[in-house]
Order: sequence, then structure tokens, then C-alpha cells
Amino acid sequence: MIIVMGLPGAGKSTVLKGVQGEVRQVNYGTLMFEIAKEKFGIEGRDQMRKLPVENQKEVQAAVAERLSKEEGKVILDTHCSIKTGKGYLPGLPFELLAKLSVEGVVLVTAKPEEVFERRSRDPSRDRDRETLEDVQEHDFMNRAFLAAYAAHRGCPAKIIYNAQGKVEEATAKLQQMLE
Amino acid sequence: MIIVMGLPGAGKSTVLKGVQGEVRQVNYGTLMFEIAKEKFGIEGRDQMRKLPVENQKEVQAAVAERLSKEEGKVILDTHCSIKTGKGYLPGLPFELLAKLSVEGVVLVTAKPEEVFERRSRDPSRDRDRETLEDVQEHDFMNRAFLAAYAAHRGCPAKIIYNAQGKVEEATAKLQQMLE
Amino acid sequence: MIIVMGLPGAGKSTVLKGVQGEVRQVNYGTLMFEIAKEKFGIEGRDQMRKLPVENQKEVQAAVAERLSKEEGKVILDTHCSIKTGKGYLPGLPFELLAKLSVEGVVLVTAKPEEVFERRSRDPSRDRDRETLEDVQEHDFMNRAFLAAYAAHRGCPAKIIYNAQGKVEEATAKLQQMLE
Repeated sequence: MIIVMGLPGAGKSTVLKGVQGEVRQVNYGTLMFEIAKEKFGIEGRDQMRKLPVENQKEVQAAVAERLSKEEGKVILDTHCSIKTGKGYLPGLPFELLAKLSVEGVVLVTAKPEEVFERRSRDPSRDRDRETLEDVQEHDFMNRAFLAAYAAHRGCPAKIIYNAQGKVEEATAKLQQMLE
Repeated sequence: MIIVMGLPGAGKSTVLKGVQGEVRQVNYGTLMFEIAKEKFGIEGRDQMRKLPVENQKEVQAAVAERLSKEEGKVILDTHCSIKTGKGYLPGLPFELLAKLSVEGVVLVTAKPEEVFERRSRDPSRDRDRETLEDVQEHDFMNRAFLAAYAAHRGCPAKIIYNAQGKVEEATAKLQQMLE
Repeated sequence: MIIVMGLPGAGKSTVLKGVQGEVRQVNYGTLMFEIAKEKFGIEGRDQMRKLPVENQKEVQAAVAERLSKEEGKVILDTHCSIKTGKGYLPGLPFELLAKLSVEGVVLVTAKPEEVFERRSRDPSRDRDRETLEDVQEHDFMNRAFLAAYAAHRGCPAKIIYNAQGKVEEATAKLQQMLE
């Protein structure tokens, strides 16, 4: 299993769409929600974080167990870190990572200037509150998290730049991780 | 419990002074010294690092136990990393971190240029030996340590800038972590 | 034991050559190969990574055991991270690090511009494919790995710059770690 994470606005989804061959792509958040729905009857993703911590851990363990049963190549699509009001929440805390069988961790990123510009054009975003420095800080922290995850698992950490207009190159690099 | 750390000269103490409400602030170094005094009769902070390693670990475990008995909101005030001749010594080694119940880790920092300038005006510092590049390096390593701590605990990592003349804004961000 | 790692082209070997006094220098890769040869009869270093994972782990454990029997001061010479097609492979995964008794981790580095220039003059390197940005990225990730290793062990993390023409200064800083 390869874990693919991205800086929001860097184009991870577009890079993932181009991946070819026998690879199953699993979205961590979607899988987590499905299992939480089965086990605790929650109806929306927002309710997930309102579950008591022990239930959240039960869901996490069930996600890891289901992933361990996957055969063949799998890409797990998740966050490197989620930016919240209380800070950058790591997508792969060691407790979760210890339960997964990981062959590589990948961060899809882009020049902070390009990401900032792409985000500014997105009308669904609250563009007033975010600066270029904020994007740079998030990118820095993602790389530091990536190194911590890789050191924990003993697996390689790959940074893939998705440069403007060169998504095929980025996808080719990801494809190389799957060989 | 929230753990608040800072780059020396970034103004962590000033930011902490402004925190309001029902929050107990505990200084890690002070608590460690008190316990080492009780247990092993040491008289000065300098003696602490001369204690045999097993005694130091006993003190560390006692600190963690005392912190676990705190009720209500607690801010633990400590170092992200201490700069020594032998390198940056992490303030929250995983062995200690594993014993604490942590809801968030915070790094109070500022632009390296501002920190460098503030330190240069401090007559108690040995200003000759430190360059702007040294401050930048320490700030980099603190952020990398912050990410490693957060990945270990699965808690959010917050970076708070204490910009010149805007300490109220920095305190407000810290206050938000405590809600 | 001190673990010394370096950015390729930063001059780690030259810095290590200058170290004086009663210190044994052990190269991790060489020791690993010797043990793999004894245990599994492999003949070349390339064969090492073709060993089944459980055999590789057995070799790793034997390396750690042999290192634990060293008396006196030891420098373990290894990679901070190896750049591969699949990403930066950490030289000190936590599983290995947990078996070692470490007093400090050191990264020998240099300005990315100088490293890039030194590498460009090395005819054995495939210079076309590497840019200054690549060197900067590797240096960043090495520092982030260094922080993760130090946080895991609770030991200091030292960055030593080997500036052009000042190798004696770099060696003196390393020597200071051994006092």
C-alpha cells in the first residue's frame, strides 16, 4: 500500500485520476465514515468527530483491519495534515500508522505561489483570511510530518511536485512508486 | 492539557501572561526541579543533569504522574528544543510524551529577524557567537520537532507568531486553543 | 555512540577523517554487509536489498547487537536518508533506532549551492537530472528526519556545516560531541 497525501490546492485528485493499471484507490475519510455509519449509525461526516474517543479508535482499528485485507496494489488517499483552528492535525498519527502495512508515503505539492493563486480563484474558499505565508507554513509542516511518518514506518517518503500544466509528469512519478 | 513551547526571544512568557480564564499554568522545568529536590535532595537546577539517568527517568515519570492528576485546563510551559553545544535537545522526547495526556502542542515563534534583533539588545546574552542563520536553524528544527511530537500524539500542532507590537493577537490565538 | 550522517557531497567523509582520539568509526552499510554475508552468504551489496524482509530484519538486529557490545566511544557512520526513485528512505527507521544506544545524532551538511556545485564537478554523477532545488529538498528532508530521530531517542540533534575550505572547523564541532 502506498499512502498519497496532498497540500489542498496542489491538485492531488487530478494526479490520482491519471493513475493507470491494477490499483485500487481508497479514500480514508470515506472508508472511515462508512464504518462509523455501520457501527454507530452516524449519518453525516460532521458527526464523526463528535463520537467519543474510544469509538473513534474502534473505527480507526476497523479501517486498518479492512485495509489489511486488500489484495493487490492499493493507494490510500488521505490528508498529510488538516489545518484547523487548533493547529495542523496529522493525518497519520503513529497509532494509526502502526496498524498499516505501508510501502511508501507520498506528498503531492506545488509551489506555494501557484497553490495560493489557485486557491484565490476558488470562490468556495474564504480567501480573505489566508496569506501566501500560511500556504508556505502548511507546506513546511506537511514535509516535516512526511519525514516523521517515514521514519516511523521505515519506508520511503516521496515529494511529487504538480507543476502548472504538467500533471502528466506528476502522475508518471506516482505510477513509478507502484512498480 | 496544552503544551506551549517557544523559540527563545520570541516572547512566549509575555504571550502566556495574557492568558485568561480558569487555566493553570505549570512550568515543566520548575516542577521537575521541585520533584528532584524532594526525591534526591538536589539543591540547584544545575545538579539535575548530574543525576544518574535512572534517577532522571524516575523524576520524569513522577512529573508525568503529577500532571495526570491535574483537573481542569492546564498549560504546560516547556522548551520545544534546547540549544546546547551537543545539538538541539528535544523538550518532549517520545518517552515523556507517551506518559502525558496532550490535546495540542503549540510553538510560539516570530520572524527570525525580529528574534535576532531582540536578542542582540539583551545584554545578558553572549551576542557575539550567534548569527541570524543560527536563529533560522533553531526555528526550523523547532517546527520539525513540533511535527514529530504531534504525529506521535495524534494531536494538532499550532504555530503562533508573536509579531512585534501584536502580543494581544498571539494571546488570542492561544486562548482559542483552550476553548 | 554518536551517529553521523551527511548530505551526499557535503563532505562527511573528510570531516570524519579528521576526528582524533580514542574513537572507533563503524560504517553501518559495511557492517550490515559483513553480517549478511556470514548469515546468508550474499556476495555483493546489491544482493542485500533482495533478501526477504524477515532476513533483512534479522541482519538489522544482529548489527544492533554487535554495536551494543562496542566499548568506548563509537561513531556510527550512516545515511540520514537515501534518495531513491521511490523517495527518501530513512537511514534510522524507529525500529532500528529503538535497538541502539545513542548519545547524539549529527547531520553534516553544507550550503545547497556549494553541494550542487561540488556534485556538478564529479564526473561519476549523472549531473543532468539533478537541480539545485533537488539538493535543497533533500537537505530539508534530512533535517526533518534528524528531528524525528532525536525526538524518538531523546538525544540532541546537531547540524554541522562543512563550509568550503573550513573542514577543520567542522571536525572540531564533531570532536566536541565526543567529549
